[in-house]
Order: sequence, then structure tokens, then C-alpha cells
Amino acid sequence: MNVPELIRKKREGGVLAEDEIRHLITGFLSGSVEAYQISAFLMAVFFRGMEPSEAATLTRIMMKSGRIYDLSSVPGIKTDKHSTGGVGDKVSLVLAPLVAAAGAVDPMVSGRALGHTGGTLDKLDSIPGYRWDLTEEQFRRQLEKVGCAIIGQTDDFVPADKRLYAMRDVTATVESIPLICASILSKKAASGAEALVMDVKCGSGAFMASEEDALKLARQLVSIGTELGMKVSALLTQMNQPLGTTVGNALEIHEVLDVLEGKGPADTRDVTVELGAEMLVHANLAASHEEARGKLNGLLDDGSAMAKFQEWVAAQKGDPRIVENRALLADAPDRAGFDAPRAGVIQSMNTRAIGVACNVLGGGRVVSSDTIDHAVGLEVHLKVGAEVKAGERLVTLHHRGGKGLEEARKLLAEAIVIGEEPVKPLELVIARLDATTA
Amino acid sequence: MNVPELIRKKREGGVLAEDEIRHLITGFLSGSVEAYQISAFLMAVFFRGMEPSEAATLTRIMMKSGRIYDLSSVPGIKTDKHSTGGVGDKVSLVLAPLVAAAGAVDPMVSGRALGHTGGTLDKLDSIPGYRWDLTEEQFRRQLEKVGCAIIGQTDDFVPADKRLYAMRDVTATVESIPLICASILSKKAASGAEALVMDVKCGSGAFMASEEDALKLARQLVSIGTELGMKVSALLTQMNQPLGTTVGNALEIHEVLDVLEGKGPADTRDVTVELGAEMLVHANLAASHEEARGKLNGLLDDGSAMAKFQEWVAAQKGDPRIVENRALLADAPDRAGFDAPRAGVIQSMNTRAIGVACNVLGGGRVVSSDTIDHAVGLEVHLKVGAEVKAGERLVTLHHRGGKGLEEARKLLAEAIVIGEEPVKPLELVIARLDATTA
Repeated sequence: MNVPELIRKKREGGVLAEDEIRHLITGFLSGSVEAYQISAFLMAVFFRGMEPSEAATLTRIMMKSGRIYDLSSVPGIKTDKHSTGGVGDKVSLVLAPLVAAAGAVDPMVSGRALGHTGGTLDKLDSIPGYRWDLTEEQFRRQLEKVGCAIIGQTDDFVPADKRLYAMRDVTATVESIPLICASILSKKAASGAEALVMDVKCGSGAFMASEEDALKLARQLVSIGTELGMKVSALLTQMNQPLGTTVGNALEIHEVLDVLEGKGPADTRDVTVELGAEMLVHANLAASHEEARGKLNGLLDDGSAMAKFQEWVAAQKGDPRIVENRALLADAPDRAGFDAPRAGVIQSMNTRAIGVACNVLGGGRVVSSDTIDHAVGLEVHLKVGAEVKAGERLVTLHHRGGKGLEEARKLLAEAIVIGEEPVKPLELVIARLDATTA
Repeated sequence: MNVPELIRKKREGGVLAEDEIRHLITGFLSGSVEAYQISAFLMAVFFRGMEPSEAATLTRIMMKSGRIYDLSSVPGIKTDKHSTGGVGDKVSLVLAPLVAAAGAVDPMVSGRALGHTGGTLDKLDSIPGYRWDLTEEQFRRQLEKVGCAIIGQTDDFVPADKRLYAMRDVTATVESIPLICASILSKKAASGAEALVMDVKCGSGAFMASEEDALKLARQLVSIGTELGMKVSALLTQMNQPLGTTVGNALEIHEVLDVLEGKGPADTRDVTVELGAEMLVHANLAASHEEARGKLNGLLDDGSAMAKFQEWVAAQKGDPRIVENRALLADAPDRAGFDAPRAGVIQSMNTRAIGVACNVLGGGRVVSSDTIDHAVGLEVHLKVGAEVKAGERLVTLHHRGGKGLEEARKLLAEAIVIGEEPVKPLELVIARLDATTA
């Protein structure tokens, strides 16, 4: 098969056949297709897009490039959630034990923080002793026993995605919706998930800032996932302000525990329940979203979700006593306030800048080799639409000896806009799509 | 400078600044910019194009990547022609001595055949003894003394073009008009040319089959060349049939000699005179195209052009006695005829297929390492619009022991379409553009 001809076909808007895509991807991995040919192909995909069936084929070929978790011995429909990434997004840590408490099986393979968004594995590293490196057998057994597990990606997990993503990152071809979909879905399929809810974040703290772009991504995720034979739905959720009240690894664990105690910020709880309801319906564990919501709220309120959280954390060698003794969590030595410079109403929040503010305190990564300070971060006390007095505390910064403090304050001063106009609180779930509506 | 950001800028339709283009191109040559980044950039250029000033900057940076012939000591405006490549296109071999006979200086740096089109250097190799590897000093002296020279590209001649072209060839990014223009013009500028006429071939035997595409290319060649400070005009010329009556290296030398003797096919002579007239006007050697045409026709008719041809060939160690003794040219041992299968009018010729027919006889290259049989080729006796009788000789094939003969016949049978309808002879010059009309 002639590689330039395959690139040309995509360049001219053609739809590649399965053997053609396989030739490109497996050739790239084996070295018979050059990196400079793949990058030209990826740029052609950026401009020409892919048909859902074509992207599904790409996804399948990528998925088969490495280890695939065989969960056929685990009873029930394996269901999972994927978020496109946001600021303060700690949903997975509540959601996995919550749906497990409802009888679902959630095989979650997570990633690390990069850029302005946090990473689930980094948040889990705040729990003393937590191990994300289960063997396949341990993963399977834990899913059978506990119903949920959150593990990291081994080197042989979807290597095609690793290689392609590294290439896209240095060739300005990250922002291609079919390539994003193939990257996400190949990993979810390889993890053994059969049903998915996609949490497509939308707003200033999200990968997709505009509702239009987020909808496009959500639609293609649902279409391509459906082509792959999965049950897929998607929620577009709010990222024009941080989710909940905390940004930063250990601080977010506090919020996770708050929500599991039936307390905590309403937005974090509500979006978790909404996403969980999708999963329960997908897994035939509820007949309707309403029924599922009721069930999940009950499990949060009666302590079942918290009990499942402790069971899960302990199964992965984490210390479950953090629930009773939060002093076991990392705590930054210093606090500083960021106060309202004037009275008024919070008009908007540049949420990406708030994520970056957490990073400059030491709580995130700019390049993947950066180490993370799990203790630092931000408490965001007020959100868009709130009336504030001059000098009122908007954010508490948890820092270590002033590291990054001035830059973080500067970012917050620019990020949080206070004005005269009344502003309605932001809606949490902007849209819902499934195979019948995508 | 961040390479992915530069790629992204072009991807989003931005216009790159000089230092940005230099960073990419010189970085690619030095190895600090990866091949996979350049190929993604080239694909982005394919989709987004380049402003004329931007393409001129790219051209200048490419031109400066290697040896530049300094012809400032040679008096007069150095003027040259470039053809985008066709079948039977032996124009350069008549044109260079013809304009030199008129007092012009033509520093021609030529290439080899690849694909279905011939190469000037390969045609020159049919002349016993001809050397294309002059030193810069020899090139300059010959231009001073003779007025024309046709040499080949040394390894250090526009290495950026060699590297970029090799990359484009394997990444389906050849067909980008600004990249084509930069490739052509960087080499012409490095050869010392100050004024150019572009022979943009148009039709089934050309790189640009449609008039629309050929016009686009011609317009950009003129715009970018003008941005570079050159005098540039362009003729769109006919390539829906071979030029002249011969296709194949030594056979084309026969036709060159015929034209220089004041005979030969009218289309070869006329298109040479049209292109030469552009060059004489550019070089201020004629006040009008009409005056220039008169001058050039006179030089063909009175033997001056032939005398200059012999002087030039001898200066480059070629045997000038080929003029008196054509038996010195390679001659294929065998002849075969291709006759009209029916009576009618020649409706059309797939000219690319006719070029390929010459190749399969051994007269061209499919890959650059192929060796060429200079003796083989085709005589095309009749062209589009001609009335033919059943069994009338259309083409004489000069072959060597039947090599490729059957395939060549098959190609001709498909290429030459005979029908009932009367067809007008094809016009030779389809359009003319210069800086005021491009």
C-alpha cells in the first residue's frame, strides 16, 4: 500500500478503509511508515475530519495496539465516565464508589495532570499509600469484589495513542475532533468499558471553550462510541467556573470526603449524580434517570457511598482512615487570602487562569516531568453571580512559603471579574446527548 | 521560537513572518526542527496557502540555503525560461541558443526526467560528449562568451529545495501552489536569473491538467517572482497533445536541429519564439513582442541560431558535428508502427499516457535511479483535429528489440481517441500573464 497515496486520499476528503488505516497506524508503530508521513496524515485529518465509521475503525485499531483488559468474567455491564478535563474536577473520586455502591462495575483507567487541568491519579496520590499500579488480575478481582477500581496506564496500554498523541503535541494536530475521540475511546474500550458517559466540559476552564465546539465533540464522541458498539451518552457541563470549592490535589480530597458525607458543594454533588444516573441507566440498574438519581442521592445520604469509598481505597492499599482523620492528608503550611477589590457581582471567572494559579503554587504540571506539591491549592469561596462586599474573601490560597503566591494572586485578580450587573448563577448541565439525539 | 505554535499559526490561516519561516526552514536543514514537524507544516500550507509576500520570503530563504551563482560580472539582464514540464517539450534546447543569438544572456540550470515528462539534461546527454557539470567560473565565462549555458544542479544548489521536495514527495504535499512556486523560483533565483518567462503547460500531459489550475499557478508564479524583484511573465501553453512530433531523447534532438534549420514542426518553433519574445522584452533587447518575434524568426531562418547552438554545444564539450552528421546521434535498432484503427478525426490525446509510452520503451524514468535509453521514443505524425484514414500511420515507435513495445502500443491505443466529430486544432498559447495582469 502506497503511503503518500493514503495521505493524499485523506487530503482530498476521502474516507479511508479499514486496511488503509491499519497500514498507517501499525506501520507507524512498527517503523515502516515514517513519523513525517503520520504527521502529514494527522494534519490532513485536522482539515478534512473523519466519518464516524472511519474514526471508529481508527479507534479500534488503536485500541488493539496493546493490552486490552478482558473483563468478560466480571458480571454486569462495565460502565465508566470520561471527562474532557476541567478545573476542580474531582468527580471520578466520588462517582466510582457511588455507582459501585449502586451495583455498577466501573473499570476506570486514569491519567495525570498536564496543563491547567488536574489529573485523577495525582489527586489519588494525595491519599497515603494508594497504589494505581494493579496487575490485570488484581484489577479484575477488585472489580468483581468491590465494583470499582481506578488505575493508571501501563506502558503497554494503547501504545498507539501514546505515540500518536506525542506526535500531535509537537505538530499542532491536537485539536482535531475525530483524533480526540479516537484517543479517548480507544483507551476506554481497552479498559473494558462497555457503556460510557462523556462529561464534556464547556467554558473558559475547558479544552473546548465554546458551547458550539463542545457540542461538536460530544456529538462525535457519541456517534463514534455508538459505531464501536458501546452505549454512550454525553453531558455538556459547566466549566466557566471551577467545579466545587477546591482546586488542588489534597484539597480536592477534602471536598470528595465532604460530598461522600452528604455535605460538600451542591455543584460537585449534583454533576456527579447526573453522570452516575447515566451510568446506572446504561448498566440497566435503573429504568429511568429519575429513578437512578433517587438511588444515588440515597447512597450519598445514607453513607453507603462513603463505605464503598473506604472499601475501594483500602483495596488499593490507600489509608481509609483519612475519612475519620483528615490530618492524614497533606496540608500546606501557609494560607493567604485573595479578597474582593470592590463591591459588586462576580460577572465571570477565567477558569483556565484559576487552574494555572494552582499550578504556579506548585499543584500541577507544565511539563510532564514536573513534580507536584499535593498540599497546595485554592479554596474558591464564591462563584459567578455572587454578590460580594469590598474586601470580602473570594479565594484562600494554600501555599508553601510564598512559592508562586504573587503570580497566583495576579492571575486571580485578572481571572475574577466583578461588575455592577446582576448575573444569574451558571447552569450546571448545559446539554445532554445520546445515540438518538447526537 | 516554538515550532508547534508556528505550525498552528499556519494551520489557522496566519501569515508567517520572515524570522518564523527562517526558523522552520533553517531548523529543518540543521536538524533542530524535526521532519515530522516540517511535513505537518507543509500539509497546513497545502490547505491554507501562502500570501505572495510570504511565499517570496520562503523562496528567498530557500534560495540562500546553498550555492548562488554570482553573475554580476556578466553584462546585461540575465533572463531565463522555466517550463512546468510536458511531453515532447524540447523548447530549452532551441530557445537558449536562439535568445543568445539575439544578444540575451540565459543561465539555465536544468533537471532530469522523472515521471511521464522528459528532462532537459537527459536530452542533452544524447549529444555525444556534452558536459553539464561546469564549475561556477566556467559557467560565468561561457555566459560572457557564448551568451547561454545549460548545466545541471550540483549537490549544494538550493539544498533546501532538495530536502523539502523529498519530504513533499512522500507526504502528499507536492500539489501546493506556493510550495511549487518557491521550489521553481528559488532555483531560478540561485542560478542568477533576473527575468523569467514561465511556460506553464496545461492539459492532459501537464502537471496542471485544467486551465483553471494552470492559471492559478501562473498567477502565483508571476506574483511571487515580482515580489522577489524579478521581471516575470507567464504563458499558458498547450499540453493536450505532445509538443512537436517527437517524444524521446535523441529523437527530440533531431527535432531541435530541424527547427534550428528553419524547418521542423510549427508548434515547437512558434512556442519557442513566443517564449523567446518574452525574454527579449524582459532583457530590453526588443521594444515589443512583435519586434522580438521578427528578430527571433530571422535568427532561425538565417542560420544564426544554429551557429549559436553549435558554439554553445562545443563550449560544453558536446560534438557540434551532429548538425552535419545526424548519424552521430543514438538510433534505436527497431521501428514499429501504430496505425489508426478506424477512419475519423483525432478527438483527443491522453498526453500523459503518450509520455508513459515513451518511458516503457526505456526512454524515461519511473524512479530516479532508472537508466535511460536515449535512442528509443515516439514520432507522433498526426495531432488533435487531424482527419485520418483507417490504417494510416499515427505514431512510429523507435524501440530496442521489442522492449516495452506491447505496453506502449496499448497505451497509445487508449490515449488516441478517434471519432466522427470535426475538431479544431488546439491553440498553442492559451493565455499570457505578466505583473500587470496576474
